Amino acid sequence: MSLLVTGSVAIDTVKTPYGVSENCLGGAAVYFSMAASFFTPVRLVGVIGPDCPFDLAEVFASRDVDLAGLEIREQSKTFRWAGTYHKNMDNRTTDSLELNVLAEAPPTVPDSFKDSKFVFLANTAPRLQHQLLEQVQRPAFVAADTMNCWIEDHLDDLKSLLEKSNCLIINEDEARMLAKEHNLIKAGEIILDMGPSVVVIKKGESGSIMCSADGDKFILPAYPAAEVKDPTGAGDSFAGGFMGHLAQSGKTDFETLKAAVAYGTVVASFTIADFSLKGLNSIDRSDIDSRFETLRKLTQF
Amino acid sequence: MSLLVTGSVAIDTVKTPYGVSENCLGGAAVYFSMAASFFTPVRLVGVIGPDCPFDLAEVFASRDVDLAGLEIREQSKTFRWAGTYHKNMDNRTTDSLELNVLAEAPPTVPDSFKDSKFVFLANTAPRLQHQLLEQVQRPAFVAADTMNCWIEDHLDDLKSLLEKSNCLIINEDEARMLAKEHNLIKAGEIILDMGPSVVVIKKGESGSIMCSADGDKFILPAYPAAEVKDPTGAGDSFAGGFMGHLAQSGKTDFETLKAAVAYGTVVASFTIADFSLKGLNSIDRSDIDSRFETLRKLTQF
Repeated sequence: MSLLVTGSVAIDTVKTPYGVSENCLGGAAVYFSMAASFFTPVRLVGVIGPDCPFDLAEVFASRDVDLAGLEIREQSKTFRWAGTYHKNMDNRTTDSLELNVLAEAPPTVPDSFKDSKFVFLANTAPRLQHQLLEQVQRPAFVAADTMNCWIEDHLDDLKSLLEKSNCLIINEDEARMLAKEHNLIKAGEIILDMGPSVVVIKKGESGSIMCSADGDKFILPAYPAAEVKDPTGAGDSFAGGFMGHLAQSGKTDFETLKAAVAYGTVVASFTIADFSLKGLNSIDRSDIDSRFETLRKLTQF
Repeated sequence: MSLLVTGSVAIDTVKTPYGVSENCLGGAAVYFSMAASFFTPVRLVGVIGPDCPFDLAEVFASRDVDLAGLEIREQSKTFRWAGTYHKNMDNRTTDSLELNVLAEAPPTVPDSFKDSKFVFLANTAPRLQHQLLEQVQRPAFVAADTMNCWIEDHLDDLKSLLEKSNCLIINEDEARMLAKEHNLIKAGEIILDMGPSVVVIKKGESGSIMCSADGDKFILPAYPAAEVKDPTGAGDSFAGGFMGHLAQSGKTDFETLKAAVAYGTVVASFTIADFSLKGLNSIDRSDIDSRFETLRKLTQF
């Protein structure tokens, strides 16, 4: 089934203990699309400025990513982020941030995308996520991401968005903040009461937890990556693998959701093995399936 | 097969956000024995002073724990530990520590225990672990625990012990310190090179990783405990469930080791649900098996 993503296209500068990647392509919609396109065609909705040095048609040349929803806003500038990952990669600091197009009105969802059935609303202001979602006619499964600043300062907008979403994909600190509960299982249940039927809580190198409103739960460790060079895009790649598998299979029962979490986990493990999109660009679907089977073998008893 | 544990019997005072448990029974050998006795008979080797207010024969009355190796050292005093777990339980401080008997010569392994096949050397100075192990005639599978102070200050003794051990059960910070490597998969492989054929790295609420010298790996999340009142004894209960299952089955192939990690995980989840031994005292083997099946269901895809 059709899969739509709304989110950022970014010019990133990333420093990690393994090196520096200056002015490279990043952004949630880019990582998501690259990840999900291993599974199913993707429709991308985002905005860039004329300063964007990347030809996205070329970037996605070998992928089934429809760029009809990519707006080039002549009077504006592309979103830029610069950050540094510190020793052990377990925390990062933002060195500079230029919201540019992201501080403006959201892009328009093209008519040809309005019948999308699977929708991923990457992180941005919940009010903008609303405005994007309203442009889709009858979505079957809507997943959203969010972050601490929206939980702190735009909680009513976020709660209203959650009432219209089927799934929230969120990291552990954000889940605790949103639920006001440290225990992640309890936090997941509190978030389910806010509206979504599925909550996926990402715990970085400790894996992820999924809870459903039917009371089902799933816990999966992260793939044991021997090499982590750049964690940027891990979360959006996870979401891409997750939503890509759901859209490809056209199902959202708990067994399919479990496999989707495993696919998200595996795709993210390739992303973090190299800078920017290099990790995802150097593999094909068979690499993902092979690592999926390895992850199954590593965790089954 | 026969299972021997050498380790501490303690008088603990524990403070957590859920309450205070003063002068309660604790110690590695106690938690280990209580946990392992769900699986197989246990032989306990340890020392207490005449000040010990607990009648261990009564404590283990309903369990198959042989106390022939429990020495009451008249001129000494029982090991005492007092600690506080802080908000979220993810770190603790030691409020006071009286080594007493633990600073003296190790106990004697009784003749009736010398034919033990499975041996767990709970945490103490590696030199003492050596002296205890030397008293066992032909052990089939020896697992050891250790901690940061021995890695820092008694590394040669520890490395010599590892050459004689089949398995090291260690927490993640200690594994990183011992291997001088942050990545836990790499750390596990470095530790395997020191001698043991199996390394189990415990990551607290993030579960555990097991690596074998044959190249096999296993990753298991922690059981998602909704209630954590007192983490004291979690590691020794894990070791008890792990070694208990191995000794009960009499096998140490990787499939059996994987199930042993799952049993250790489950037993520890009962320990932390209440203070001191209350969590382990309120269950029977069927509760463990039921949670084992739940853990399997939670993690399989």
